[in-house]
Amino acid sequence: MRALVLQEKGRMGIEDVPSPGAPGPGEVRIAMHTVGICASDVHYWTEGRIGPFVVEAPMILGHEGAGTVVEIGEGVTGLSVGDRVAMEPGVPDPASRATLEGRYNVDPAVRFWATPPIDGCLAEEVVHPAAFTYRLPDALSFAEGALIEPFAVGMFAATKAQISPGDVVAVIGSGTIGIMTALAARAGGASRVYISDVQSAKLGLLDGLTGIIPVDATQEDLGERVRAETSGWGPQVVIEASGAAPAYKGLWTVPAPGGRVVLVGMPVEPVAFDVATAQSRGISIETIFRYANIHQKAIDLAASDAVDLGRFVTETFAFEDSEKAFERFLEGRPTDVKLQIAF
Amino acid sequence: MRALVLQEKGRMGIEDVPSPGAPGPGEVRIAMHTVGICASDVHYWTEGRIGPFVVEAPMILGHEGAGTVVEIGEGVTGLSVGDRVAMEPGVPDPASRATLEGRYNVDPAVRFWATPPIDGCLAEEVVHPAAFTYRLPDALSFAEGALIEPFAVGMFAATKAQISPGDVVAVIGSGTIGIMTALAARAGGASRVYISDVQSAKLGLLDGLTGIIPVDATQEDLGERVRAETSGWGPQVVIEASGAAPAYKGLWTVPAPGGRVVLVGMPVEPVAFDVATAQSRGISIETIFRYANIHQKAIDLAASDAVDLGRFVTETFAFEDSEKAFERFLEGRPTDVKLQIAF
Amino acid sequence: MRALVLQEKGRMGIEDVPSPGAPGPGEVRIAMHTVGICASDVHYWTEGRIGPFVVEAPMILGHEGAGTVVEIGEGVTGLSVGDRVAMEPGVPDPASRATLEGRYNVDPAVRFWATPPIDGCLAEEVVHPAAFTYRLPDALSFAEGALIEPFAVGMFAATKAQISPGDVVAVIGSGTIGIMTALAARAGGASRVYISDVQSAKLGLLDGLTGIIPVDATQEDLGERVRAETSGWGPQVVIEASGAAPAYKGLWTVPAPGGRVVLVGMPVEPVAFDVATAQSRGISIETIFRYANIHQKAIDLAASDAVDLGRFVTETFAFEDSEKAFERFLEGRPTDVKLQIAF
Amino acid sequence: MRALVLQEKGRMGIEDVPSPGAPGPGEVRIAMHTVGICASDVHYWTEGRIGPFVVEAPMILGHEGAGTVVEIGEGVTGLSVGDRVAMEPGVPDPASRATLEGRYNVDPAVRFWATPPIDGCLAEEVVHPAAFTYRLPDALSFAEGALIEPFAVGMFAATKAQISPGDVVAVIGSGTIGIMTALAARAGGASRVYISDVQSAKLGLLDGLTGIIPVDATQEDLGERVRAETSGWGPQVVIEASGAAPAYKGLWTVPAPGGRVVLVGMPVEPVAFDVATAQSRGISIETIFRYANIHQKAIDLAASDAVDLGRFVTETFAFEDSEKAFERFLEGRPTDVKLQIAF
Repeated sequence: MRALVLQEKGRMGIEDVPSPGAPGPGEVRIAMHTVGICASDVHYWTEGRIGPFVVEAPMILGHEGAGTVVEIGEGVTGLSVGDRVAMEPGVPDPASRATLEGRYNVDPAVRFWATPPIDGCLAEEVVHPAAFTYRLPDALSFAEGALIEPFAVGMFAATKAQISPGDVVAVIGSGTIGIMTALAARAGGASRVYISDVQSAKLGLLDGLTGIIPVDATQEDLGERVRAETSGWGPQVVIEASGAAPAYKGLWTVPAPGGRVVLVGMPVEPVAFDVATAQSRGISIETIFRYANIHQKAIDLAASDAVDLGRFVTETFAFEDSEKAFERFLEGRPTDVKLQIAF
Repeated sequence: MRALVLQEKGRMGIEDVPSPGAPGPGEVRIAMHTVGICASDVHYWTEGRIGPFVVEAPMILGHEGAGTVVEIGEGVTGLSVGDRVAMEPGVPDPASRATLEGRYNVDPAVRFWATPPIDGCLAEEVVHPAAFTYRLPDALSFAEGALIEPFAVGMFAATKAQISPGDVVAVIGSGTIGIMTALAARAGGASRVYISDVQSAKLGLLDGLTGIIPVDATQEDLGERVRAETSGWGPQVVIEASGAAPAYKGLWTVPAPGGRVVLVGMPVEPVAFDVATAQSRGISIETIFRYANIHQKAIDLAASDAVDLGRFVTETFAFEDSEKAFERFLEGRPTDVKLQIAF
Repeated sequence: MRALVLQEKGRMGIEDVPSPGAPGPGEVRIAMHTVGICASDVHYWTEGRIGPFVVEAPMILGHEGAGTVVEIGEGVTGLSVGDRVAMEPGVPDPASRATLEGRYNVDPAVRFWATPPIDGCLAEEVVHPAAFTYRLPDALSFAEGALIEPFAVGMFAATKAQISPGDVVAVIGSGTIGIMTALAARAGGASRVYISDVQSAKLGLLDGLTGIIPVDATQEDLGERVRAETSGWGPQVVIEASGAAPAYKGLWTVPAPGGRVVLVGMPVEPVAFDVATAQSRGISIETIFRYANIHQKAIDLAASDAVDLGRFVTETFAFEDSEKAFERFLEGRPTDVKLQIAF
Repeated sequence: MRALVLQEKGRMGIEDVPSPGAPGPGEVRIAMHTVGICASDVHYWTEGRIGPFVVEAPMILGHEGAGTVVEIGEGVTGLSVGDRVAMEPGVPDPASRATLEGRYNVDPAVRFWATPPIDGCLAEEVVHPAAFTYRLPDALSFAEGALIEPFAVGMFAATKAQISPGDVVAVIGSGTIGIMTALAARAGGASRVYISDVQSAKLGLLDGLTGIIPVDATQEDLGERVRAETSGWGPQVVIEASGAAPAYKGLWTVPAPGGRVVLVGMPVEPVAFDVATAQSRGISIETIFRYANIHQKAIDLAASDAVDLGRFVTETFAFEDSEKAFERFLEGRPTDVKLQIAF
């Protein structure tokens, strides 16, 4: 079968690779339909590594995937051949302590698609555990199915934010993760979500979405704006989705007293943390790493009328044009939210 | 001023009563505009008591109120004359342990409108603490403002339900509180809310609301229906809003394993509780009594496009026709959700 | 090897049965040393069933076990031959949704020792997953190791009670589970634990334990006693460990306003539940079924000086005298806390 | 009456000041017995300010106080003349949103003893709200009563740590707050508490306390030590009590996967925060500012045999020697835990 293989830093291409073969017990075989491109895929291509994860052998890219079940392994009961599905790309050690505690995302032994040395899903077929394969309802297209993975990151941020119904939420950064997080927070119970960015083009992507209020950070201060519209109280939840070090300056005065800050953007270097200010306001902080027990809820919410993921697919490339898709990603157009590849 | 006074069990009428006078420090004086009728108002009228609360002296009825600020007491900073407002009807002892712990709804010393011997708000004017008086945004009418109180009960149920974004919720009972709870749960993060009732007319009130799915309990079993549509898992949250003893039969198998049951309906007598079944499924249970720290969030959510309270005002009576409104309530028409009285 | 086999209702005996053979991947083989007798073992013997679980074929009894690792399966890294260990008797389906959510105790597919048709551990050897086998520190004897299982039930109750440091806790029922729960609650953060029983002999078992206060329920009311010693406030947490229907009468007024009730005793029939009183006090309720992610913490706490499990082993029988041990259990002596069988 | 007055930066002395007069409604008058010296008292003396709080007028010092009720204001029911009491030094605005939410410690309007411009309790008498005055049981001396305030800080840290029974806890820093936190964590449910410091003399203060394990940070790494003794897992909770910037280096790898870090030490400058590492391990962070709803629980736990506060009173000075006590504090002897002043 064909797959998009990263041979080494800077060099990738479509290759013929062995098919995954028949699914084992508890597994299914899936014909891939659509795969989204994530910044990490591009980063492995251009840099050959992310932190401790180094590309030392050829690896298939891609971890945001949707497709169709074509074969069922022994003992699988919840899925059938022909089911349209989205897949959760990380599979933990089922016997690890982290997994048994329900936080398999931080299991050190997790095997995650397109994270060296594990192959990803930009291939004609994959074999995957049924427990991490989710049926798509009719309301969701394959393109939306392939968006469930990044949406799940936003959903996990909104979940760990512990939003109470009616809370006011502020999101810093209107990149792909910021948008996914804002959608999840709004549908997840916020009465309104303020989202700030320094690029007004990115904010424009949210035009027409009720309950989501863009704040141009070059023109006004996010904290001041929200306080002005909440009788001085501020948002109960602030979600940092930019990963930019400057966002941490002044961050701790944005949330309401006793509020919660959720860190989903990943700064490349340590940032300056004004502990004393955070303390004086009694702030709680949650950090986000991927997700656990989120995919089904993400699908359920995406399939409802509360969230429209489809509008955030900017462009779809044919599998043969995969490298073009990666080059387009590198352009960094501010209005590109999600580029996808379809088989 | 005029007020609707319950003189004793079975006898009420509009009377001239002393005005509340000037607001004290931290208080405001409010000209009432709209007041909703609650079952408790009617119950005091027909029965003269609810549990330990007995009508032993004439008492002004009404606790679901909206109006306009007409005078400001010393030290009040957040409100101005002319502000349109909704009021939280219970005022706790600020020095009580329950209040300091943030659960002032269970402060034994709380003073609650139209709960003997405390006068309610079916009067031309009231004086109320500013801390329990909330400005209404332009998006909300007085009628909707007077609905904030019952909506706050549903909001508190949805809050204590700890709904995670995308959870599936089931509500038992489509009376006024069931409807308010379903609205709050849906806008509060549920991907969909199933709501059951034995009266199909009540379910019809929810027609056209996306994400809210009526279940005719005379035709199908709520638990079976939800399991069928959640791959056999069931709803993460079940909210009992009927207060009917039969609803407790089979209740504990409805939620998903490890799920939560929220009891907001108030049965008049003890019900049969199958503890062993609840245990074998690891169910958590929350009980709801009024609300605490909810009104501002209820207003924020009601003012968003996620909730439309206005459609649930069934009919509005002139203050002079208050007794007619109470008589209409007694008819118990299945499609009556909220009857209100306007000055 | 020899094992204690329940052939059918009312008939059991020591039999020669096949050895479990070599451990598979991720498993260990254990030579059993000590096994405690639980009421459920006795109940299967005398009644042949517990609820939906019916003895339809011969089954080895026993699920409270400690022993020594004698063989290691492939891939096991945390255990070595010769390790003294205690075992968690329930093994869930690792791919189930309940397991992935961290609540494997409510996984419908869990396989639990001595729950039909799964064999228990009253046998010379067992094979068990390493992930559910816990090394005993030197501070704990085999007898204490075999008490970890019932202590884990009390620990799970204390955990789901969400005791804050310094909370006052009340436990109803001083049977084995009540005692285990009281120990866990006290070491788990309670400033003091009141424990009530109608049998004063049972309360005497706790003599000399600091911070645990016996209340003779035939002489005084538990709620009144605690309120009198907490300025009228009451305990933040009440743990019902008797499983007796009368304990539910008046239960809801025992906890402090906004308090928590934990149901660990299992009533055989539905009980009367005064919902309105529980609501008016804002009570939260947790139900306990076995335990999840508790054994390591139970061992750590039992190995500290905060808990002395050993004193609660009432008598130890030789394996050959197993049936005598069961007969002694049936006598129901009030001072019998735990009877054990040693190989 | 006499009081210890800080006239301005660097200058203090015992002065005659007006008595506080009769208690108002809900207040009591207290004859002070013992007052502990806190670093903040000394800092105001030597520096004239802490952050935004500047000494601009003479101010009575002291906020860790115990004494005897000598007069009761109108409406006070829970206290009597002659009661021995400890006081919570911060009194919030009862009508503020933070207070109503149960987090009055972050109410911006809180009035806190010896925080400019509010007078403290190093005076012969104070008048204080009864709701913030707590009766001392016979088991606690006045000296221990005056230690309740710093212990409450440790208790709040242990409370927000959400320790589950049997959790392993690590505390960084064995200063006064570190010790108070370790005591609270241990009595609050931890199976054992590792506490590290770079000064071995400070660790020696904990000799003989079971369940508290000193770690000399100049000799070994705290994280490595705990992992070595928890099968590589690490502590579920890490409490940073040093306020030292270097403690933040490597901090995020100390807790177990999905663990919690509690920040109670207050660094004077922003620290470097390795967000990516915290994220990859799914760490939650709580920040501590004073305490709310803790004093009664702190007294209850201190009065039990689980905590012995008394041993941490290093030396007691007569009121006349107050300045000597402050000078002794400035010496910074490593074995000084708490210096107190008695009337």
